Amino acid sequence: MSRQRATAFVPGHVTAFFSAHPAERPAAAGSRGAGVTLTDGVTVRVAADEAAPGTAPAGSRTIDGESGTVGAVEDVLAALGLGRDAGDRPAVDVAVETDLPIGAGFGVSGAAALGAALAANDAFDRGRSENELVRIAHEAEVGRGTGLGDVVAQARGGVPIRLEPGAPGVGELDGIPADARVEYVTFGELSTERVLGGDTAALSAAGEDALARLRADPRLQTLMDAARAFAREADLLVPEVAEAIAAVEESEGDSPENSDDCGAAMAMLGRTVFALGTGLSDAGYDPEVCRVDAAGARLVEQQ
Amino acid sequence: MSRQRATAFVPGHVTAFFSAHPAERPAAAGSRGAGVTLTDGVTVRVAADEAAPGTAPAGSRTIDGESGTVGAVEDVLAALGLGRDAGDRPAVDVAVETDLPIGAGFGVSGAAALGAALAANDAFDRGRSENELVRIAHEAEVGRGTGLGDVVAQARGGVPIRLEPGAPGVGELDGIPADARVEYVTFGELSTERVLGGDTAALSAAGEDALARLRADPRLQTLMDAARAFAREADLLVPEVAEAIAAVEESEGDSPENSDDCGAAMAMLGRTVFALGTGLSDAGYDPEVCRVDAAGARLVEQQ
Repeated sequence: MSRQRATAFVPGHVTAFFSAHPAERPAAAGSRGAGVTLTDGVTVRVAADEAAPGTAPAGSRTIDGESGTVGAVEDVLAALGLGRDAGDRPAVDVAVETDLPIGAGFGVSGAAALGAALAANDAFDRGRSENELVRIAHEAEVGRGTGLGDVVAQARGGVPIRLEPGAPGVGELDGIPADARVEYVTFGELSTERVLGGDTAALSAAGEDALARLRADPRLQTLMDAARAFAREADLLVPEVAEAIAAVEESEGDSPENSDDCGAAMAMLGRTVFALGTGLSDAGYDPEVCRVDAAGARLVEQQ
Repeated sequence: MSRQRATAFVPGHVTAFFSAHPAERPAAAGSRGAGVTLTDGVTVRVAADEAAPGTAPAGSRTIDGESGTVGAVEDVLAALGLGRDAGDRPAVDVAVETDLPIGAGFGVSGAAALGAALAANDAFDRGRSENELVRIAHEAEVGRGTGLGDVVAQARGGVPIRLEPGAPGVGELDGIPADARVEYVTFGELSTERVLGGDTAALSAAGEDALARLRADPRLQTLMDAARAFAREADLLVPEVAEAIAAVEESEGDSPENSDDCGAAMAMLGRTVFALGTGLSDAGYDPEVCRVDAAGARLVEQQ
């Protein structure tokens, strides 16, 4: 049933808080924490390289239509035996498309890796299970140092809680059962590699506190409260985000009748603020608007 | 954030094959096996009993608009402290709606239980996590003897493989990554309680064989092949279903060019035949048509 082409969609993921858990084996490395998956996400199209005259060049790689590669995607393809053909030529075309800002805390690299795994497995009939594909994408993301927990969260969808770090079979997940509108504003990039490459002891202690609090009370309000406390304690708040969080808090204080107000928080790791409901627009921002993604990563029909 | 009303959707689930694993503790009891979740499913609406003059009677229970109860739903409500008020009066209204046939192998009782858990938790702000709600619904279903593995499969969505039996934290799942059209025809009811209440040793041996085969090759074609072998070995095939499976096989043999053909199989446990792609319509049946449900059980916006 090799169709030679397939498309996958993977939701964006904003991490509310986390603790880092490195390990020798990439499948066992990862993070504990929680976040929100978004109906705004990443679409990955994988196809056999056609290399016909006038089409894209052999083994093309595009991001939003421009030539560009994602390291973790290349590692995923290699793990599926689709890296390079006998002539050392990339064997497949990969197109990554997203409306999400890149490098701003939405897990775009993890989404691209997981989408490539799902689509390539389907297009070339690799016969891997879902858990195997999530593990391959998680290992690629951890190996590249671009993320620690986005992939397993994006595979699940909803509002995932990462109870134990690592790929399926090692890690453990739960979730907050919730459907909600999500708003976000991005002020620019923040390097995941730099933060994760530094001393993460204080960050991880704050992350473990936040997780204990959320496990005791798995509600959206607690998620957002714990996220704000984490950003302060881990000393990760950037000025524009701190200002937006304060503006949302003030705006919600003005209309206390709306019991859905949970305030805003910072997306880890990006210069991004997100809110559930209408917090950012009520506070006068002009946010992007989406919802919690119920499904998680999935193959989609060809378009 | 108690809204006093909420709605959940839970996909139908046809089991392709299974082995039964009873246990003292309901959370540890369950089944191994595999199946397909469907975009045709069950919608559960839970609301505070309004009991105003002219409205539905106190603590109303309806199934497709008619008065009716699902045992597992009552157990779920009791587990969430919503069983009966101080005057021994049911405290909430529950409306179950489905286009699926009941008692025909679609996991409607499990779906109703899981939908009630998700909706009641949200409507009455019970603060349970997703894993806790799935466990409560699984325990209710196992306790009533109406199913062993539908709930955990319906919570995940897609094409779930039940690697280890039991609720979240005990059981283990994987999945076949696939998006597909699903067709089905139902010829009538089959009692789950009667089959599960009898000697299940031969059935479970056949189910374990089928699972080993699918784990070695997690593809849709293998799922359907293993399902047909299971139905024969476990001696569960009913004549109408056997006839339909043969008709689909013959029809596909006539047009071998369609590599998507996987044949048809029996839904366990119901007088129901299902096929992926267009197998049943190609063979001259007039099936219901839906797709694999990518998302699994979820809260939905009020309508």
